[in-house]
Amino acid sequence: MFNLCCNKAGHRLFYHSSRKNMASVSTALVFLAEGAEEMETVITVDVLRRGEVDVVLAGIDGDGPVKCSRNVKLVPDKSLRDALHKEYDVLICPGGGLGAENLCKSKEVGKALQEQEKRGGFIAAICAGPTALLAHNVGKGKKITSYPSMADKLKDAYKYSEDRVVVDGKFITSRGPGTCFEFALAIVEQLKGKEKAHALVKPMLIKI
Amino acid sequence: MFNLCCNKAGHRLFYHSSRKNMASVSTALVFLAEGAEEMETVITVDVLRRGEVDVVLAGIDGDGPVKCSRNVKLVPDKSLRDALHKEYDVLICPGGGLGAENLCKSKEVGKALQEQEKRGGFIAAICAGPTALLAHNVGKGKKITSYPSMADKLKDAYKYSEDRVVVDGKFITSRGPGTCFEFALAIVEQLKGKEKAHALVKPMLIKI
Repeated sequence: MFNLCCNKAGHRLFYHSSRKNMASVSTALVFLAEGAEEMETVITVDVLRRGEVDVVLAGIDGDGPVKCSRNVKLVPDKSLRDALHKEYDVLICPGGGLGAENLCKSKEVGKALQEQEKRGGFIAAICAGPTALLAHNVGKGKKITSYPSMADKLKDAYKYSEDRVVVDGKFITSRGPGTCFEFALAIVEQLKGKEKAHALVKPMLIKI
Repeated sequence: MFNLCCNKAGHRLFYHSSRKNMASVSTALVFLAEGAEEMETVITVDVLRRGEVDVVLAGIDGDGPVKCSRNVKLVPDKSLRDALHKEYDVLICPGGGLGAENLCKSKEVGKALQEQEKRGGFIAAICAGPTALLAHNVGKGKKITSYPSMADKLKDAYKYSEDRVVVDGKFITSRGPGTCFEFALAIVEQLKGKEKAHALVKPMLIKI
Protein backbone atom coordinates (compact mmCIF):
# COMPACT_ATOMS: atom_id res chain seq x y z
CA MET A 1 0.00 0.00 0.00
CA PHE A 2 2.79 2.43 0.80
CA ASN A 3 3.82 2.78 -2.84
CA LEU A 4 0.54 4.61 -3.42
CA CYS A 5 1.77 7.43 -1.21
CA CYS A 6 3.85 9.04 -3.96
CA ASN A 7 2.61 12.58 -3.53
CA LYS A 8 1.16 14.68 -0.76
CA ALA A 9 -2.48 14.37 -1.83
CA GLY A 10 -2.18 10.63 -2.34
CA HIS A 11 -0.56 10.19 1.02
CA ARG A 12 -3.34 12.08 2.77
CA LEU A 13 -5.97 9.96 1.04
CA PHE A 14 -4.32 6.73 2.16
CA TYR A 15 -3.85 8.02 5.68
CA HIS A 16 -7.49 9.05 6.10
CA SER A 17 -9.14 6.04 4.53
CA SER A 18 -6.99 3.63 6.49
CA ARG A 19 -7.70 5.37 9.80
CA LYS A 20 -11.40 4.57 9.57
CA ASN A 21 -10.78 0.84 9.30
CA MET A 22 -7.80 0.33 11.56
CA ALA A 23 -7.28 0.56 15.28
CA SER A 24 -5.22 3.73 14.75
CA VAL A 25 -5.70 6.71 17.01
CA SER A 26 -7.91 9.65 16.10
CA THR A 27 -7.31 12.81 18.08
CA ALA A 28 -9.43 15.77 19.18
CA LEU A 29 -8.83 18.98 21.07
CA VAL A 30 -11.76 20.64 22.86
CA PHE A 31 -11.18 24.30 23.79
CA LEU A 32 -12.21 25.05 27.39
CA ALA A 33 -12.86 28.72 28.15
CA GLU A 34 -14.44 30.39 31.16
CA GLY A 35 -18.20 30.46 30.59
CA ALA A 36 -18.26 27.41 28.28
CA GLU A 37 -21.53 25.52 28.21
CA GLU A 38 -20.64 22.58 30.45
CA MET A 39 -23.12 20.10 28.94
CA GLU A 40 -21.81 20.77 25.43
CA THR A 41 -18.23 20.45 26.63
CA VAL A 42 -18.72 17.27 28.64
CA ILE A 43 -21.08 15.47 26.23
CA THR A 44 -18.60 16.07 23.41
CA VAL A 45 -15.57 14.86 25.37
CA ASP A 46 -17.39 11.83 26.81
CA VAL A 47 -19.01 10.65 23.56
CA LEU A 48 -15.74 11.03 21.62
CA ARG A 49 -13.89 9.04 24.28
CA ARG A 50 -16.58 6.33 24.07
CA GLY A 51 -15.81 6.36 20.34
CA GLU A 52 -12.14 5.76 21.12
CA VAL A 53 -11.04 9.21 20.05
CA ASP A 54 -8.07 10.48 22.05
CA VAL A 55 -9.44 13.79 23.42
CA VAL A 56 -7.58 16.64 25.11
CA LEU A 57 -9.69 19.16 27.02
CA ALA A 58 -7.46 22.22 26.74
CA GLY A 59 -7.80 25.23 29.06
CA ILE A 60 -7.33 28.37 26.99
CA ASP A 61 -6.17 30.26 30.11
CA GLY A 62 -3.98 27.52 31.58
CA ASP A 63 -4.46 24.23 33.38
CA GLY A 64 -6.47 25.41 36.41
CA PRO A 65 -10.20 24.70 37.00
CA VAL A 66 -12.56 26.58 34.70
CA LYS A 67 -15.96 27.89 35.77
CA CYS A 68 -18.54 27.10 33.12
CA SER A 69 -21.81 28.82 32.22
CA ARG A 70 -23.90 27.19 34.99
CA ASN A 71 -21.07 27.26 37.53
CA VAL A 72 -19.86 23.68 37.03
CA LYS A 73 -16.08 23.67 37.41
CA LEU A 74 -14.10 21.52 34.97
CA VAL A 75 -10.39 20.79 35.24
CA PRO A 76 -8.73 20.80 31.81
CA ASP A 77 -6.40 17.94 30.88
CA LYS A 78 -3.74 20.52 30.09
CA SER A 79 -3.31 24.13 29.06
CA LEU A 80 -3.97 25.02 25.44
CA ARG A 81 -0.35 26.13 25.13
CA ASP A 82 0.90 22.67 26.15
CA ALA A 83 -1.78 20.91 24.09
CA LEU A 84 -0.77 22.69 20.89
CA HIS A 85 2.64 20.98 20.72
CA LYS A 86 0.96 18.46 18.44
CA GLU A 87 -1.67 18.40 15.71
CA TYR A 88 -5.23 17.05 16.09
CA ASP A 89 -7.69 15.52 13.66
CA VAL A 90 -10.36 17.91 14.95
CA LEU A 91 -10.49 21.14 16.95
CA ILE A 92 -13.79 21.70 18.77
CA CYS A 93 -15.44 24.94 19.96
CA PRO A 94 -18.22 24.39 22.54
CA GLY A 95 -20.82 27.10 23.09
CA GLY A 96 -21.93 29.13 26.07
CA GLY A 97 -22.27 32.88 25.48
CA LEU A 98 -19.28 33.99 27.55
CA GLY A 99 -17.29 30.87 26.63
CA ALA A 100 -17.65 31.58 22.92
CA GLU A 101 -16.79 35.25 23.45
CA ASN A 102 -13.60 34.12 25.13
CA LEU A 103 -12.80 31.83 22.17
CA CYS A 104 -13.41 34.81 19.84
CA LYS A 105 -10.98 36.98 21.81
CA SER A 106 -8.17 34.43 22.13
CA LYS A 107 -5.28 34.88 19.67
CA GLU A 108 -4.05 31.37 20.48
CA VAL A 109 -7.43 29.87 19.58
CA GLY A 110 -7.51 31.93 16.38
CA LYS A 111 -4.05 30.80 15.31
CA ALA A 112 -4.91 27.15 16.03
CA LEU A 113 -8.15 27.34 14.02
CA GLN A 114 -6.47 29.04 11.07
CA GLU A 115 -3.63 26.49 10.98
CA GLN A 116 -6.15 23.66 11.27
CA GLU A 117 -8.08 25.00 8.27
CA LYS A 118 -4.86 25.45 6.29
CA ARG A 119 -3.73 21.88 6.84
CA GLY A 120 -7.19 20.47 6.01
CA GLY A 121 -8.09 19.23 9.49
CA PHE A 122 -11.62 19.06 10.88
CA ILE A 123 -13.11 22.01 12.79
CA ALA A 124 -16.29 21.53 14.84
CA ALA A 125 -18.39 24.10 16.71
CA ILE A 126 -21.73 24.10 18.51
CA CYS A 127 -24.21 26.65 19.87
CA ALA A 128 -22.39 30.01 20.14
CA GLY A 129 -19.12 28.25 19.22
CA PRO A 130 -19.41 29.00 15.47
CA THR A 131 -19.00 32.73 16.23
CA ALA A 132 -15.35 31.87 16.96
CA LEU A 133 -14.99 30.71 13.35
CA LEU A 134 -16.30 34.08 12.18
CA ALA A 135 -14.09 36.03 14.60
CA HIS A 136 -10.99 34.21 13.39
CA ASN A 137 -11.95 34.30 9.71
CA VAL A 138 -12.21 30.55 9.30
CA GLY A 139 -14.43 28.46 6.99
CA LYS A 140 -16.01 31.45 5.26
CA GLY A 141 -18.68 30.46 2.74
CA LYS A 142 -19.21 27.04 4.26
CA LYS A 143 -22.67 25.73 5.15
CA ILE A 144 -22.98 25.94 8.94
CA THR A 145 -25.49 26.19 11.77
CA SER A 146 -25.36 27.58 15.33
CA TYR A 147 -27.52 28.50 18.31
CA PRO A 148 -30.56 30.17 16.74
CA SER A 149 -29.88 33.60 18.28
CA MET A 150 -26.41 33.66 16.66
CA ALA A 151 -27.82 33.25 13.15
CA ASP A 152 -27.90 36.96 12.28
CA LYS A 153 -24.20 37.36 13.07
CA LEU A 154 -23.29 34.42 10.83
CA LYS A 155 -25.63 34.71 7.85
CA ASP A 156 -23.49 37.06 5.77
CA ALA A 157 -20.26 35.09 5.97
CA TYR A 158 -21.69 31.54 5.81
CA LYS A 159 -24.48 29.57 4.14
CA TYR A 160 -26.73 29.38 7.20
CA SER A 161 -28.74 26.23 7.86
CA GLU A 162 -31.27 25.40 10.58
CA ASP A 163 -30.44 21.68 10.54
CA ARG A 164 -29.54 20.20 13.94
CA VAL A 165 -26.10 19.15 12.66
CA VAL A 166 -24.36 20.34 9.50
CA VAL A 167 -21.30 18.72 7.92
CA ASP A 168 -19.72 20.66 5.05
CA GLY A 169 -16.32 19.33 4.07
CA LYS A 170 -14.15 19.60 7.16
CA PHE A 171 -16.62 21.78 9.10
CA ILE A 172 -19.06 20.19 11.55
CA THR A 173 -21.51 22.53 13.31
CA SER A 174 -24.55 22.19 15.54
CA ARG A 175 -27.10 24.19 17.55
CA GLY A 176 -27.18 23.70 21.33
CA PRO A 177 -27.21 21.38 24.36
CA GLY A 178 -30.13 19.32 23.03
CA THR A 179 -28.35 18.65 19.71
CA CYS A 180 -25.01 17.84 21.32
CA PHE A 181 -25.25 14.04 21.26
CA GLU A 182 -25.94 14.25 17.51
CA PHE A 183 -23.03 16.68 17.13
CA ALA A 184 -20.59 14.42 18.97
CA LEU A 185 -21.77 11.37 17.00
CA ALA A 186 -21.24 13.29 13.75
CA ILE A 187 -17.65 14.01 14.80
CA VAL A 188 -17.08 10.32 15.63
CA GLU A 189 -18.57 9.39 12.26
CA GLN A 190 -16.21 11.73 10.40
CA LEU A 191 -13.16 10.46 12.29
CA LYS A 192 -13.93 6.77 12.71
CA GLY A 193 -16.72 5.90 10.30
CA LYS A 194 -20.48 5.48 10.40
CA GLU A 195 -20.43 2.04 12.00
CA LYS A 196 -18.38 3.17 14.98
CA ALA A 197 -20.68 6.15 15.57
CA HIS A 198 -23.81 4.05 15.22
CA ALA A 199 -22.51 1.51 17.74
CA LEU A 200 -22.51 4.23 20.43
CA VAL A 201 -26.20 5.09 20.13
CA LYS A 202 -27.85 2.11 21.84
CA PRO A 203 -25.52 1.81 24.87
CA MET A 204 -26.17 5.50 25.65
CA LEU A 205 -29.95 5.10 25.14
CA ILE A 206 -30.06 8.00 22.72
CA LYS A 207 -33.39 8.55 20.99
CA ILE A 208 -32.66 9.49 17.38
CA MET B 1 -51.74 31.48 55.41
CA PHE B 2 -49.29 30.88 58.24
CA ASN B 3 -52.04 29.88 60.67
CA LEU B 4 -52.43 26.73 58.58
CA CYS B 5 -49.03 25.58 59.77
CA CYS B 6 -50.28 24.32 63.10
CA ASN B 7 -48.64 20.93 63.02
CA LYS B 8 -45.61 19.34 61.38
CA ALA B 9 -47.50 17.59 58.57
CA GLY B 10 -49.58 20.68 57.85
CA HIS B 11 -46.52 22.86 57.73
CA ARG B 12 -44.81 20.60 55.25
CA LEU B 13 -47.89 20.59 53.02
CA PHE B 14 -48.05 24.38 52.97
CA TYR B 15 -44.37 24.66 52.31
CA HIS B 16 -44.43 22.27 49.33
CA SER B 17 -47.57 23.44 47.59
CA SER B 18 -46.63 27.09 47.89
CA ARG B 19 -43.15 26.53 46.51
CA LYS B 20 -44.47 25.54 43.09
CA ASN B 21 -46.24 28.83 42.63
CA MET B 22 -43.86 31.26 44.25
CA ALA B 23 -40.37 32.42 43.47
CA SER B 24 -39.09 30.52 46.51
CA VAL B 25 -35.97 28.44 46.32
CA SER B 26 -35.97 24.72 45.54
CA THR B 27 -32.83 22.85 46.48
CA ALA B 28 -30.99 19.80 45.16
CA LEU B 29 -27.90 17.85 46.14
CA VAL B 30 -26.09 15.81 43.47
CA PHE B 31 -23.70 13.19 44.84
CA LEU B 32 -20.33 13.25 43.09
CA ALA B 33 -18.27 10.05 43.41
CA GLU B 34 -15.14 8.92 41.60
CA GLY B 35 -16.24 7.17 38.40
CA ALA B 36 -19.55 9.06 38.09
CA GLU B 37 -20.91 9.35 34.57
CA GLU B 38 -19.91 12.94 33.77
CA MET B 39 -22.67 13.61 31.23
CA GLU B 40 -25.35 12.48 33.66
CA THR B 41 -23.82 14.55 36.44
CA VAL B 42 -23.36 17.72 34.41
CA ILE B 43 -26.64 17.58 32.44
CA THR B 44 -28.55 17.18 35.71
CA VAL B 45 -26.77 20.04 37.49
CA ASP B 46 -26.98 22.37 34.46
CA VAL B 47 -30.65 21.73 33.60
CA LEU B 48 -31.71 22.11 37.25
CA ARG B 49 -29.82 25.40 37.50
CA ARG B 50 -31.51 26.58 34.30
CA GLY B 51 -34.75 25.69 36.11
CA GLU B 52 -33.68 27.94 39.01
CA VAL B 53 -33.09 25.08 41.40
CA ASP B 54 -30.30 25.80 43.88
CA VAL B 55 -27.96 22.82 43.25
CA VAL B 56 -24.99 21.64 45.31
CA LEU B 57 -22.60 19.23 43.62
CA ALA B 58 -21.28 17.39 46.67
CA GLY B 59 -18.04 15.39 46.61
CA ILE B 60 -18.57 12.22 48.64
CA ASP B 61 -14.82 12.02 49.33
CA GLY B 62 -14.22 15.70 50.04
CA ASP B 63 -13.99 18.92 48.04
CA GLY B 64 -11.12 18.03 45.67
CA PRO B 65 -11.46 17.34 41.91
CA VAL B 66 -13.17 14.05 41.05
CA LYS B 67 -12.22 11.90 38.06
CA CYS B 68 -15.35 10.73 36.29
CA SER B 69 -16.00 7.65 34.14
CA ARG B 70 -14.49 9.09 30.93
CA ASN B 71 -11.72 10.95 32.73
CA VAL B 72 -13.41 14.36 32.85
CA LYS B 73 -12.45 16.00 36.15
CA LEU B 74 -15.20 17.89 38.00
CA VAL B 75 -14.64 20.09 41.03
CA PRO B 76 -17.46 19.67 43.58
CA ASP B 77 -19.06 22.79 45.06
CA LYS B 78 -18.32 21.39 48.51
CA SER B 79 -17.75 18.12 50.33
CA LEU B 80 -20.78 15.96 51.09
CA ARG B 81 -20.01 16.36 54.78
CA ASP B 82 -20.27 20.15 54.54
CA ALA B 83 -23.26 19.98 52.19
CA LEU B 84 -25.28 17.85 54.61
CA HIS B 85 -25.56 20.62 57.21
CA LYS B 86 -28.93 21.41 55.60
CA GLU B 87 -31.83 19.55 54.01
CA TYR B 88 -32.59 19.41 50.27
CA ASP B 89 -35.79 18.97 48.31
CA VAL B 90 -34.10 16.26 46.24
CA LEU B 91 -31.01 14.06 46.54
CA ILE B 92 -29.69 12.82 43.19
CA CYS B 93 -27.57 9.74 42.36
CA PRO B 94 -25.92 9.88 38.90
CA GLY B 95 -24.77 6.68 37.23
CA GLY B 96 -21.45 5.41 35.98
CA GLY B 97 -20.53 1.86 37.01
CA LEU B 98 -17.75 2.75 39.44
CA GLY B 99 -19.50 5.95 40.52
CA ALA B 100 -22.63 4.04 41.54
CA GLU B 101 -20.53 1.38 43.31
CA ASN B 102 -18.97 4.17 45.34
CA LEU B 103 -22.41 5.52 46.22
CA CYS B 104 -23.42 2.01 47.30
CA LYS B 105 -20.38 1.72 49.57
CA SER B 106 -20.66 5.15 51.22
CA LYS B 107 -22.22 5.14 54.69
CA GLU B 108 -22.71 8.91 54.51
CA VAL B 109 -24.66 8.58 51.23
CA GLY B 110 -26.74 5.76 52.76
CA LYS B 111 -27.60 7.80 55.85
CA ALA B 112 -28.55 10.83 53.74
CA LEU B 113 -30.81 8.74 51.46
CA GLN B 114 -32.51 7.03 54.39
CA GLU B 115 -33.17 10.34 56.18
CA GLN B 116 -34.44 11.86 52.92
CA GLU B 117 -36.93 9.01 52.52
CA LYS B 118 -38.02 9.28 56.16
CA ARG B 119 -38.78 12.98 55.89
CA GLY B 120 -40.64 12.55 52.57
CA GLY B 121 -38.12 14.33 50.34
CA PHE B 122 -37.51 13.50 46.69
CA ILE B 123 -34.84 10.97 45.69
CA ALA B 124 -33.70 10.73 42.06
CA ALA B 125 -31.32 8.26 40.41
CA ILE B 126 -30.24 7.49 36.86
CA CYS B 127 -28.39 4.71 35.01
CA ALA B 128 -26.51 2.62 37.61
CA GLY B 129 -27.52 5.17 40.29
CA PRO B 130 -30.64 3.24 41.38
CA THR B 131 -28.40 0.43 42.69
CA ALA B 132 -27.49 2.86 45.49
CA LEU B 133 -31.16 2.89 46.53
CA LEU B 134 -31.08 -0.90 46.75
CA ALA B 135 -27.76 -0.95 48.63
CA HIS B 136 -29.08 1.48 51.22
CA ASN B 137 -32.52 -0.12 51.50
CA VAL B 138 -34.43 2.87 50.22
CA GLY B 139 -37.70 3.08 48.25
CA LYS B 140 -38.32 -0.68 48.29
CA GLY B 141 -41.43 -1.68 46.34
CA LYS B 142 -41.50 1.54 44.30
CA LYS B 143 -41.78 1.55 40.53
CA ILE B 144 -38.34 2.42 39.16
CA THR B 145 -36.10 2.09 36.13
CA SER B 146 -32.31 2.02 35.61
CA TYR B 147 -29.60 1.32 33.04
CA PRO B 148 -30.83 -1.87 31.31
CA SER B 149 -27.95 -4.05 32.52
CA MET B 150 -28.83 -3.22 36.16
CA ALA B 151 -32.40 -4.53 35.80
CA ASP B 152 -31.71 -8.02 37.17
CA LYS B 153 -30.23 -6.63 40.39
CA LEU B 154 -33.28 -4.44 40.98
CA LYS B 155 -36.23 -6.55 39.84
CA ASP B 156 -36.83 -8.35 43.13
CA ALA B 157 -36.92 -5.30 45.37
CA TYR B 158 -38.71 -2.87 43.01
CA LYS B 159 -41.45 -2.80 40.39
CA TYR B 160 -39.14 -2.59 37.39
CA SER B 161 -40.13 -0.48 34.38
CA GLU B 162 -38.42 0.06 31.03
CA ASP B 163 -39.80 3.60 30.62
CA ARG B 164 -37.20 6.30 29.96
CA VAL B 165 -38.20 8.17 33.13
CA VAL B 166 -40.31 6.86 36.00
CA VAL B 167 -41.88 8.99 38.73
CA ASP B 168 -43.45 7.07 41.62
CA GLY B 169 -44.32 9.26 44.57
CA LYS B 170 -41.07 10.86 45.68
CA PHE B 171 -38.83 8.59 43.56
CA ILE B 172 -37.65 9.75 40.13
CA THR B 173 -35.52 7.29 38.12
CA SER B 174 -34.14 7.07 34.59
CA ARG B 175 -31.93 4.94 32.32
CA GLY B 176 -28.73 6.50 30.96
CA PRO B 177 -26.95 9.44 29.31
CA GLY B 178 -29.43 9.61 26.44
CA THR B 179 -32.41 9.89 28.83
CA CYS B 180 -30.75 12.43 31.10
CA PHE B 181 -32.36 15.59 29.71
CA GLU B 182 -35.77 13.97 30.28
CA PHE B 183 -34.67 12.91 33.79
CA ALA B 184 -33.52 16.42 34.72
CA LEU B 185 -36.71 17.96 33.30
CA ALA B 186 -38.79 15.50 35.35
CA ILE B 187 -36.98 16.65 38.50
CA VAL B 188 -37.61 20.31 37.61
CA GLU B 189 -41.25 19.47 36.99
CA GLN B 190 -41.62 17.84 40.41
CA LEU B 191 -39.93 20.73 42.21
CA LYS B 192 -41.15 23.72 40.23
CA GLY B 193 -44.13 22.58 38.17
CA LYS B 194 -44.82 21.49 34.61
CA GLU B 195 -44.75 24.97 33.10
CA LYS B 196 -41.28 25.75 34.42
CA ALA B 197 -39.92 22.45 33.09
CA HIS B 198 -41.59 22.90 29.71
CA ALA B 199 -40.12 26.39 29.35
CA LEU B 200 -36.60 24.89 29.38
CA VAL B 201 -37.11 22.57 26.41
CA LYS B 202 -37.03 25.02 23.50
CA PRO B 203 -34.03 27.15 24.60
CA MET B 204 -31.97 23.95 24.92
CA LEU B 205 -33.21 22.61 21.54
CA ILE B 206 -34.23 19.32 23.07
CA LYS B 207 -36.10 16.96 20.75
CA ILE B 208 -38.86 15.31 22.81
